[in-house]
Amino acid sequence: MGMASQNSFRIEYDTFGELKVPNDKYYGAQTVRSTMNFKIGGVTERMPIPVIKAFGILKRAAAEVNQDYGLDVKIANAIMKAADEVAEGKLNDHFPLVIWQTGSGTQTNMNVNEVISNRAIELLGGELGSKKPVHPNDHVNKSQSSNDTFPTAMHIAAAVEVHEVLLPGLQKLHDALDAKSKEFAQIIKIGRTHTQDAVPLTLGQEFSGYVQQVKYAMARIKAAMPRIYELAAGGTAVGTGLNTRIGFAEKVAAKVAALTGLPFVTAPNKFEALAAHDALVELSGAMNTTACSLMKIANDIRFLGSGPRSGLGELILPENEPGSSIMPGKVNPTQCEAMTMVAAQVMGNHVAVTVGGSNGHFELNVFKPMMIKNVLHSARLLGDASVSFTENCVVGIQANTERINKLMHESLMLVTALNPHIGYDKAAKIAKTAHKNGSTLKETAIELGYLTAEQFDEWVKPKDMLGPK
Amino acid sequence: MGMASQNSFRIEYDTFGELKVPNDKYYGAQTVRSTMNFKIGGVTERMPIPVIKAFGILKRAAAEVNQDYGLDVKIANAIMKAADEVAEGKLNDHFPLVIWQTGSGTQTNMNVNEVISNRAIELLGGELGSKKPVHPNDHVNKSQSSNDTFPTAMHIAAAVEVHEVLLPGLQKLHDALDAKSKEFAQIIKIGRTHTQDAVPLTLGQEFSGYVQQVKYAMARIKAAMPRIYELAAGGTAVGTGLNTRIGFAEKVAAKVAALTGLPFVTAPNKFEALAAHDALVELSGAMNTTACSLMKIANDIRFLGSGPRSGLGELILPENEPGSSIMPGKVNPTQCEAMTMVAAQVMGNHVAVTVGGSNGHFELNVFKPMMIKNVLHSARLLGDASVSFTENCVVGIQANTERINKLMHESLMLVTALNPHIGYDKAAKIAKTAHKNGSTLKETAIELGYLTAEQFDEWVKPKDMLGPK
Amino acid sequence: MGMASQNSFRIEYDTFGELKVPNDKYYGAQTVRSTMNFKIGGVTERMPIPVIKAFGILKRAAAEVNQDYGLDVKIANAIMKAADEVAEGKLNDHFPLVIWQTGSGTQTNMNVNEVISNRAIELLGGELGSKKPVHPNDHVNKSQSSNDTFPTAMHIAAAVEVHEVLLPGLQKLHDALDAKSKEFAQIIKIGRTHTQDAVPLTLGQEFSGYVQQVKYAMARIKAAMPRIYELAAGGTAVGTGLNTRIGFAEKVAAKVAALTGLPFVTAPNKFEALAAHDALVELSGAMNTTACSLMKIANDIRFLGSGPRSGLGELILPENEPGSSIMPGKVNPTQCEAMTMVAAQVMGNHVAVTVGGSNGHFELNVFKPMMIKNVLHSARLLGDASVSFTENCVVGIQANTERINKLMHESLMLVTALNPHIGYDKAAKIAKTAHKNGSTLKETAIELGYLTAEQFDEWVKPKDMLGPK
Amino acid sequence: MGMASQNSFRIEYDTFGELKVPNDKYYGAQTVRSTMNFKIGGVTERMPIPVIKAFGILKRAAAEVNQDYGLDVKIANAIMKAADEVAEGKLNDHFPLVIWQTGSGTQTNMNVNEVISNRAIELLGGELGSKKPVHPNDHVNKSQSSNDTFPTAMHIAAAVEVHEVLLPGLQKLHDALDAKSKEFAQIIKIGRTHTQDAVPLTLGQEFSGYVQQVKYAMARIKAAMPRIYELAAGGTAVGTGLNTRIGFAEKVAAKVAALTGLPFVTAPNKFEALAAHDALVELSGAMNTTACSLMKIANDIRFLGSGPRSGLGELILPENEPGSSIMPGKVNPTQCEAMTMVAAQVMGNHVAVTVGGSNGHFELNVFKPMMIKNVLHSARLLGDASVSFTENCVVGIQANTERINKLMHESLMLVTALNPHIGYDKAAKIAKTAHKNGSTLKETAIELGYLTAEQFDEWVKPKDMLGPK
Repeated sequence: MGMASQNSFRIEYDTFGELKVPNDKYYGAQTVRSTMNFKIGGVTERMPIPVIKAFGILKRAAAEVNQDYGLDVKIANAIMKAADEVAEGKLNDHFPLVIWQTGSGTQTNMNVNEVISNRAIELLGGELGSKKPVHPNDHVNKSQSSNDTFPTAMHIAAAVEVHEVLLPGLQKLHDALDAKSKEFAQIIKIGRTHTQDAVPLTLGQEFSGYVQQVKYAMARIKAAMPRIYELAAGGTAVGTGLNTRIGFAEKVAAKVAALTGLPFVTAPNKFEALAAHDALVELSGAMNTTACSLMKIANDIRFLGSGPRSGLGELILPENEPGSSIMPGKVNPTQCEAMTMVAAQVMGNHVAVTVGGSNGHFELNVFKPMMIKNVLHSARLLGDASVSFTENCVVGIQANTERINKLMHESLMLVTALNPHIGYDKAAKIAKTAHKNGSTLKETAIELGYLTAEQFDEWVKPKDMLGPK
Repeated sequence: MGMASQNSFRIEYDTFGELKVPNDKYYGAQTVRSTMNFKIGGVTERMPIPVIKAFGILKRAAAEVNQDYGLDVKIANAIMKAADEVAEGKLNDHFPLVIWQTGSGTQTNMNVNEVISNRAIELLGGELGSKKPVHPNDHVNKSQSSNDTFPTAMHIAAAVEVHEVLLPGLQKLHDALDAKSKEFAQIIKIGRTHTQDAVPLTLGQEFSGYVQQVKYAMARIKAAMPRIYELAAGGTAVGTGLNTRIGFAEKVAAKVAALTGLPFVTAPNKFEALAAHDALVELSGAMNTTACSLMKIANDIRFLGSGPRSGLGELILPENEPGSSIMPGKVNPTQCEAMTMVAAQVMGNHVAVTVGGSNGHFELNVFKPMMIKNVLHSARLLGDASVSFTENCVVGIQANTERINKLMHESLMLVTALNPHIGYDKAAKIAKTAHKNGSTLKETAIELGYLTAEQFDEWVKPKDMLGPK
Repeated sequence: MGMASQNSFRIEYDTFGELKVPNDKYYGAQTVRSTMNFKIGGVTERMPIPVIKAFGILKRAAAEVNQDYGLDVKIANAIMKAADEVAEGKLNDHFPLVIWQTGSGTQTNMNVNEVISNRAIELLGGELGSKKPVHPNDHVNKSQSSNDTFPTAMHIAAAVEVHEVLLPGLQKLHDALDAKSKEFAQIIKIGRTHTQDAVPLTLGQEFSGYVQQVKYAMARIKAAMPRIYELAAGGTAVGTGLNTRIGFAEKVAAKVAALTGLPFVTAPNKFEALAAHDALVELSGAMNTTACSLMKIANDIRFLGSGPRSGLGELILPENEPGSSIMPGKVNPTQCEAMTMVAAQVMGNHVAVTVGGSNGHFELNVFKPMMIKNVLHSARLLGDASVSFTENCVVGIQANTERINKLMHESLMLVTALNPHIGYDKAAKIAKTAHKNGSTLKETAIELGYLTAEQFDEWVKPKDMLGPK
Repeated sequence: MGMASQNSFRIEYDTFGELKVPNDKYYGAQTVRSTMNFKIGGVTERMPIPVIKAFGILKRAAAEVNQDYGLDVKIANAIMKAADEVAEGKLNDHFPLVIWQTGSGTQTNMNVNEVISNRAIELLGGELGSKKPVHPNDHVNKSQSSNDTFPTAMHIAAAVEVHEVLLPGLQKLHDALDAKSKEFAQIIKIGRTHTQDAVPLTLGQEFSGYVQQVKYAMARIKAAMPRIYELAAGGTAVGTGLNTRIGFAEKVAAKVAALTGLPFVTAPNKFEALAAHDALVELSGAMNTTACSLMKIANDIRFLGSGPRSGLGELILPENEPGSSIMPGKVNPTQCEAMTMVAAQVMGNHVAVTVGGSNGHFELNVFKPMMIKNVLHSARLLGDASVSFTENCVVGIQANTERINKLMHESLMLVTALNPHIGYDKAAKIAKTAHKNGSTLKETAIELGYLTAEQFDEWVKPKDMLGPK
């Protein structure tokens, strides 16, 4: 990109004074100042890239709309081009700021303004840091405030991550579980309630519960999106829209919708859109529910696949890696473990989002960077983990039919089938006696004189116990 | 009800043996046994009454349907009558069991079965505890299992509480805030971002943000209801519907819908409905978001009403009680405090529900009583607190217009109106200089030679700063 | 107690006006006013009795100290006698206020002041509600404020509950687990890591981990107590001790210590003691860790006891009640379920305490009633559940030695014993081959030519695998 | 380090087969396999560097001890040298694995074993990937298992982070607050309870509450450390210490203690040390309490510094950066915002740790990487934020004494000083009347005839209201 060597600096200034800016960076004085004031957490704590990209989209849209309202075409075009580069992730190295900054994300908004203005200046042959002909505030941030742009970028980033990572991941998992549910439709197995033996069902039925959970997970997340699609842009500093133009808000939302292909609209109430981030708490809540679902599924699968010889052993899980550095031959349900760790993290992230979401004051919630970071973290982890879990575990799950059959036929719980025939109390007597003596239900039932062998065979058929009559 | 004296006992038995049951109670042996095995937490920890009432509705519906399938009419009618009494709360004293019991709520299901069977026996002139002619398992629990009845009762109870307490409470609050927003539409005040002075808005606009939050709170809760309306009944022990009849599930759901006036349907997948309670996690999540909204609103109101002389003092809150046992004349924002305590509780309840919801295994989640207790607790607290907050605070809020005017006109932030005229940097200079010197913006602006007095008056009009142009 | 009939009322007044007070109650106007202003949650939401009792102790101690500073002896004695009745729980029915009131607990402090003053008036032959000769503020609340008495009562209540319920419950559980650990010391069983088969250990060793967890749970709770023993009394309204006397704080703490037998001291910094309740967050955190420990233990026990025929089946849990209303003979790990539900609740309570603890402002945290309610709830539930779990489950646990032996000898993981002899890679080969062929380790090892039968028997001895060499 | 070009690969193998390993990396086949199986979250989700460094310390210590037990000196020395490089952070680029892997951290243990063995091989002139003469399992991992090394590294990493980042950060904050408390000792100001005006205290007293909170925060964290100092090393696969040597555990702990200067000891019960991570939940709980403390302090400071003209305005906070991209001259409490965002994150992290800590099964908790990641995250954020908050905010706080004086003298709450002289009810009357009329206390008191001007001046002296008499 034709910038000077890494070791040289240029001087930029903000309203507080001069600062040295590395010559190979597009950012300016306010960004540098933030790096000095917020040494919290290091490189892994940088503002998530999806937020930066969302800002690129927003700034591009705003420039287009500003041009409609009279912004010089040359300047607008340069801003758009620079903003596109931000949106495409080409300038990621120019966003060094951490999440733990101003709670409105002001410094990241300024980082974006500075990068776009300097890059636009460069495109127009100007001097980096001169703020001419493209001023970071007067042009790039025109009709905007950190207070409306940051929440706008939050919503864009969340929506994009949900659509590009989270929902596709869940869909993939759903489809794989659904295929397994169908594949296992004829395999009758012992059910387990209270972790104890219960009446039979098919392995396909068991998996159908998982399918339903993931299907509803997607429905829940989608149900939260309408409020995520509402954009704060146009509210400027406190929600009134001061210093912006009538129609700006609606037009920016429409442009963002066009650029992303997602149904963004302008928020009907900008005061709520700046002062509260209930929509993110809501989305986080949907992901928290999803985490519960996935925790349940992954737990079941690891227990059903436990063994190889001293566990339940009904499922055979794919072997993906050596399981233990000391116990050779051991294969562990590692994908289940990654998934359940992700689930725990998402539950924790949700509390962070909740605490932040509840602590806004007056016209502005100032937990913005923390909130969006956790929402994006949850979305990415759930989406990625769903893909990993699907590809490296679910699709390769096999039923250990021999084991499944053995367990089912040894079970005492088939006795339930006798309830309608001999009543609850006698059925209970059979089961308890067989349990005490280690005998089979059939032997015991006959011995107790409650029924004949023929009746037992007639009445106790696992196949007939899979549904209502 | 014609029962014997409190001091006498009758003998009942379960499959484990004999037990003494107080003669003035309808419950039976399994209930007594549970009180012996689960001495956890005492009277305040009893199964919430809404669950008991919901069981009354369910058992009545099941008896009706069972009659269609051949249950003796006399028995069915007696069950229905007894179940109605449970549903109406007439037999509340007969449900002594605590939440901290079997995780499937089995013992509460049996408590219900026992009470209804004994009450039905009594209605039919039989002997309490004889299980004749109405057997708690064979008749009252016919075609049912704890595993499907308890989650059914959970969903009924949650839906009823949402409709009878939570949504009406929120609606009341919404309407009161909305009325205030309109009442305050013309009062221009200083905005505050980062808790610092910012550009003006109207007090009505500020309240409109609260209105929007509560409006969305109701929308979020309603969005969670479709999955709450799905009933597990008909799934029996593991979700297959063993020992029930084809059509039973659908008919029971229809009866429950008719009895409650709520659109209950049978759950499309009973395995999910028993093994997971994602729907409760989801509803709890919607209430968690609501808690964030209400925390924000109550916090704002107490800070805006802080004083009387050393606070922000923009709102005058109703005086409801003596505020301090030592500081006479002190009036505290006690309704805000109750509300924010409720909000914190709801956030905590949500984590309990989340942990429970994530820990189901195989065919059954066994955190049922704990989960529904927390969901009902949150719904009741949010609903009641909304009513209390509305009646004892919101409706009585007055704007302290004198104070509001004073603060607004002293503010430096009106300088923002100059941005489009003299640019950001000069405007900043004016504000910082006035701040340093304790002078007004106008004086300073003229002194710095950036504009004339006429221009200042022309450009800086709070009324013109309330929206885009 | 010689009061008038339930239907009659007397008139009392507070600074806001007159109110009708039931004649059979000792409380006065401010209590009645609170019941009118805070209709939130109903009877189960009343201020926990341990707080009321703690107030009795505190008011008694304060009266004693006030007498030292000149309070009329007759009045002081009457207050002490009435306060003792409160401390002994004799007047519980006179405390109708709910948790969801003023966040400082002011109204409960006034409830206590009113009850004690009226009861003292009665003892002295005066007229209820006359405030003579014992005034609720001037005498009962002398040298006190709600702002220091409520946190003092919080700490007293928490400490008493910890010592009377929580620690004894945990000690009982610890001792029972320790006895089992010793009882099971010689039973060698398969270990499980990642829920998969692993190398052996003794059942006693496995239980020793639980013992250690509970031992540390007690240590953690005790470690939090020093800051709970610090009392706010003497800080009055904002922590300065205005309107109290030098030495009052220290003397009250000493009296409370004497009355309770617990090492209470006056808080070294009263500003912290009123404005923050970090000590309760800390104690709640210790209980949260305890909840994790108990969740783990209860989960293990239910899985190890799963079956009877299709689970792990290594433990035989006591049968306490009929397990299922539809599946006869089924016995469920209900005590484990109650315990894990309690654990989930405690985790949720902890978040509520955390949110409340973080939201104090200036000189006062106003989430006091909510915080102490959750702390007491957690302490009681953990203590009670530990006793219930111990008595109804742990002490009756039997090892299913037949099953344990079978599983261990079938295991492939004994192969680990070969690592030091033939190296990791060959050992892995043996285990994987045996797994694939369903053969034993010994057969496979010999077949692969890695060792002789004698070497196998020499090297693979479960007894030798239980510790380092 | 003399490795081949980035584009070339070597072939390594694990028990699953061959894999291509980049020639410029020291890691081997199992690491590569993990990167293929766990594509979750990307670069920011890598195992935290403190864990890697801790592994370096552990592996060095283990090699030393293994040498005592007979490991070849040359091999031991090479391992130690390579491990030292890991501990010093020189090989950070060789640890690409993410947190979301096997829940025991097995793959990171293998990553470490591979890097150290290859680096040691290189030091000895051998061929990378040859496993000769230094085998990752047989030598680097000798007497170890992932199941004991990973928790050991967790504890080392947590302890080091606490000592190097968290406690120094808190100490710095403590000292700065303490200096301010002393600096402000003579400034009398209005107190605020319920966010409402209350009786006076000094600004120094107010800050002394913060000092106490931070002092106790350090005490709480230190109180959790004894259990963090317990190391699992020597427990190997299930806690028995199979395949290790008597004394190994103690010697390794002693070496680690010597290398770090921290009092590490061997865990008294290795079963607990592998199967539960209660110690991390405990430490996280201490940090959660710290987060509550810091949230309170930062909230107070931003509200006390609110303004410049329409807030409380008692404190003047340092101006660190331009506050708003649209409102010039605005200075925001950005350090408070970063701090409160950190606090919310720590509360969320704590829930993640809690959920993970409660979900261990049998001999192994498999939420290890997630748990330690969150603990380290919280420690780093709290430590860094404390330093940033101190340097960029606390040390520069100035009291706005003019404003403080004005507010105090206008206050109605000074009336409390009259309680001992004229009684509560009359004092209340004065305050309420003055409030209604907007008059001063003195005027009103005289007007009401309760006292003389002289008495007022005699009795109402803010200076005399700062403590007991």
